[in-house]
Amino acid sequence: MKKNMEKIVGWAKRKGFIYPGSDIYGGFGNSYTYGPYGVEMKNNLKTTWWKMFVNDRADMVGIDGGILLHPKTWKASGHVDTFNDPMVDCKKCQARHRADHLIEDALDIKSADGMSCEEISQKIKNNQIKCPKCGATELTEARQFNLMFETQMAKTGEDSTAYLRPETAQAIFLEFKNVIDTTRVKVPFGIGQIGKAFRNEITPGNFIFRVLEFEQMEIEYFVHESEWEEHFDKWVSAMYDWCECIGLDRQKIHELDVDGEALAHYSKKTIDFEYEFPFGIKELYGCAYRTNFDLNNHEKASGKKLTYRDPQTNEVYLPHVIEPTFGVDRSILAIICEAYDEEELDDGATRTVMHFNTRMAPVKVAVLPLMKKDGLPEKAKAIQQQCQCFGNTEYDEGGAIGKRYRRQDEIGTPVCITVDYDTLEDESVTVRDRDTMKQDRIKISDLVDYLATKYFKKNLNA
Amino acid sequence: MKKNMEKIVGWAKRKGFIYPGSDIYGGFGNSYTYGPYGVEMKNNLKTTWWKMFVNDRADMVGIDGGILLHPKTWKASGHVDTFNDPMVDCKKCQARHRADHLIEDALDIKSADGMSCEEISQKIKNNQIKCPKCGATELTEARQFNLMFETQMAKTGEDSTAYLRPETAQAIFLEFKNVIDTTRVKVPFGIGQIGKAFRNEITPGNFIFRVLEFEQMEIEYFVHESEWEEHFDKWVSAMYDWCECIGLDRQKIHELDVDGEALAHYSKKTIDFEYEFPFGIKELYGCAYRTNFDLNNHEKASGKKLTYRDPQTNEVYLPHVIEPTFGVDRSILAIICEAYDEEELDDGATRTVMHFNTRMAPVKVAVLPLMKKDGLPEKAKAIQQQCQCFGNTEYDEGGAIGKRYRRQDEIGTPVCITVDYDTLEDESVTVRDRDTMKQDRIKISDLVDYLATKYFKKNLNA
Repeated sequence: MKKNMEKIVGWAKRKGFIYPGSDIYGGFGNSYTYGPYGVEMKNNLKTTWWKMFVNDRADMVGIDGGILLHPKTWKASGHVDTFNDPMVDCKKCQARHRADHLIEDALDIKSADGMSCEEISQKIKNNQIKCPKCGATELTEARQFNLMFETQMAKTGEDSTAYLRPETAQAIFLEFKNVIDTTRVKVPFGIGQIGKAFRNEITPGNFIFRVLEFEQMEIEYFVHESEWEEHFDKWVSAMYDWCECIGLDRQKIHELDVDGEALAHYSKKTIDFEYEFPFGIKELYGCAYRTNFDLNNHEKASGKKLTYRDPQTNEVYLPHVIEPTFGVDRSILAIICEAYDEEELDDGATRTVMHFNTRMAPVKVAVLPLMKKDGLPEKAKAIQQQCQCFGNTEYDEGGAIGKRYRRQDEIGTPVCITVDYDTLEDESVTVRDRDTMKQDRIKISDLVDYLATKYFKKNLNA
Repeated sequence: MKKNMEKIVGWAKRKGFIYPGSDIYGGFGNSYTYGPYGVEMKNNLKTTWWKMFVNDRADMVGIDGGILLHPKTWKASGHVDTFNDPMVDCKKCQARHRADHLIEDALDIKSADGMSCEEISQKIKNNQIKCPKCGATELTEARQFNLMFETQMAKTGEDSTAYLRPETAQAIFLEFKNVIDTTRVKVPFGIGQIGKAFRNEITPGNFIFRVLEFEQMEIEYFVHESEWEEHFDKWVSAMYDWCECIGLDRQKIHELDVDGEALAHYSKKTIDFEYEFPFGIKELYGCAYRTNFDLNNHEKASGKKLTYRDPQTNEVYLPHVIEPTFGVDRSILAIICEAYDEEELDDGATRTVMHFNTRMAPVKVAVLPLMKKDGLPEKAKAIQQQCQCFGNTEYDEGGAIGKRYRRQDEIGTPVCITVDYDTLEDESVTVRDRDTMKQDRIKISDLVDYLATKYFKKNLNA
């Protein structure tokens, strides 16, 4: 089935996964709110990541740093000076545009990366490039526009300008010294963090693929320089394990070895994990070898020693860094695109079904009493309570049972349990599988074991 | 034992719970980073809250909205016009001060709440009130300073100023319509949310008690106006259950019925839950009856109908709102202050021990091989893996066993398991209790059941 973004966006709103942000005010800058099912899935994603990469590994710890950090952080990291996009404004309609994209589109150039503002302005003038919005040729000179959101601290002082962090990574570098001073980690080790970051883009789009406010799950993994390649390879492999764990098809993931102009100034090697989204093959995750660029810069800017002493060899050095980085919102988007399906059924009807795996599904089990009376609701609620050991559950007593199955299919609930009149006699329930739509009759006393084995084994032990 | 904030702050940094933010750059505006153990505890807190108040209740759903919302949100909510503090600057040393606090301190007035800037300026002049920093009497006139952080959107247009949300509540009101349109909730029901909020205070302090960037867990519970008192009382009771669930002593919690000038303009009744912090009895949580103030304002400002139709009676109305609100950082601070203890032992030594309950403890179980050889580490690691069903675990093979126990006491690990030479013979381990320091010998085959029953029963079922 060819997947269609418009349908997916419509489904996401209609089913309470993802709403347009500030919807009643007509939206706001391509922002989104995770609805009741969306936030459950996001929580599943983040706790699964934290367990896999932080809790279950002896070589990892976590931290949670600020969105507002000391402004010198962003001077040292290079963001104040180089985290820019070239922009032009239309003097007539006031629309603002990415100047490099204008050139690329108008002159059919693959990439204008690395062109100076002067070159860009010259090309715009020479080729009479028009405002894509109103068609006027009165564009301003191109100028660099920093992508960090700025704000002012109320407390006066020399540093009254602060920035919303454009990446979570730097908070980890700032805490490198505190972590090695106060815990028992030994290189190689990593620090993981989950949190929001902000980029003041003027061309967000593709639903939650590119948004101004987004969430990252990042790891900075500290190694001896001589071992960077070995660890880089291990992390690339761990990232594939992760993709599998959240239910992405390995065939739809493509490695892009980033080089040339596109390689960030701090990196010696970067692999992008690209995913086959319905709107094209686009970056999902990245793994970068950042050398000791960041620790080195913060050491110079702060005047604090950030070196590590090897307890065996006594060698004192600045560790090098492998950075596996995962976007929360892009993960959710990929999981949704992967899971979305419209199936033609034998009776000619079509059902929309989300094939989420049991880890990511926002509702693990739905319990449905056949009727709203005769003690069936009480029985169903008791069973629901039992099933809460698997995570979030739902109870639904409204409408025909077939409709209720479809409703659960649409939100990707792996299992429905139906309590009927026979249940009162035989202490058994009907267990209906989302994907096969097959039904089994199971004793209530065996139910938790049955579900654990067939559906949630990995959830419980992993 | 009289608890001492300086010691607690020192402990928090030394043990990897909470570091000063942007530490290597000399700190930044009373900000903090949660270190490896702090972030585990914060995750425990948030997942426990979400389970108790969202997943385990049939009348609650969750959402996750933006930090950046449409600016009209804050106009409608009243924040643009009234979320101000009066400030004066010292013309000599440029220090900025809360003008109302200056008056209160200098003239020994209990509260300057409600005084206009003119009155305040007059009192400063008449009483020759001095700059508390440099002693000069050259203070500017008092003026209102809005507590919201402002930023500019790169995309030009009429709404280029945006605000960092000063509370999470408004994101919930904005989504009220989407939630009732896309899910099957019926009044009374609530929407819960966890997320960051920001206030541009000039007098933050008391460690993580008052910070510029903080995290909230908020519920907006929608009811029919006629039932607000009943639901208010239920929520107050539920908030006490929560305090118990995270290990706070009920005796240290005091209800303050907020009234008069201190009652927010949107509220008809507010109860503050105050806690006996080492620096005084201060606000921990709040429960407010907000009437239909917010829905009403957003309905007017957006032009969208935000009414609810009762499916039984067909009555169409704007629901009223009960708002239980919980600070994440204040919760963590209260839990730490409650748990901190310095015990004198029989041998005259003192041990620092954190009496966290098993839900909040950042490490649930530590597994310690007596020696680093002879197969003990392998055995210990296998046991550690078994114990991961209880949550985050630790393996520690370094130093004398007594020292390792103390180290776990200091981070509040409820149970230590020691693997010794006898273990290789009798397949048993020593289980050492943090609080009693008593040791039991337990068969490895019985270990998970023993720990589940004695320590983690509630964690597994709750």
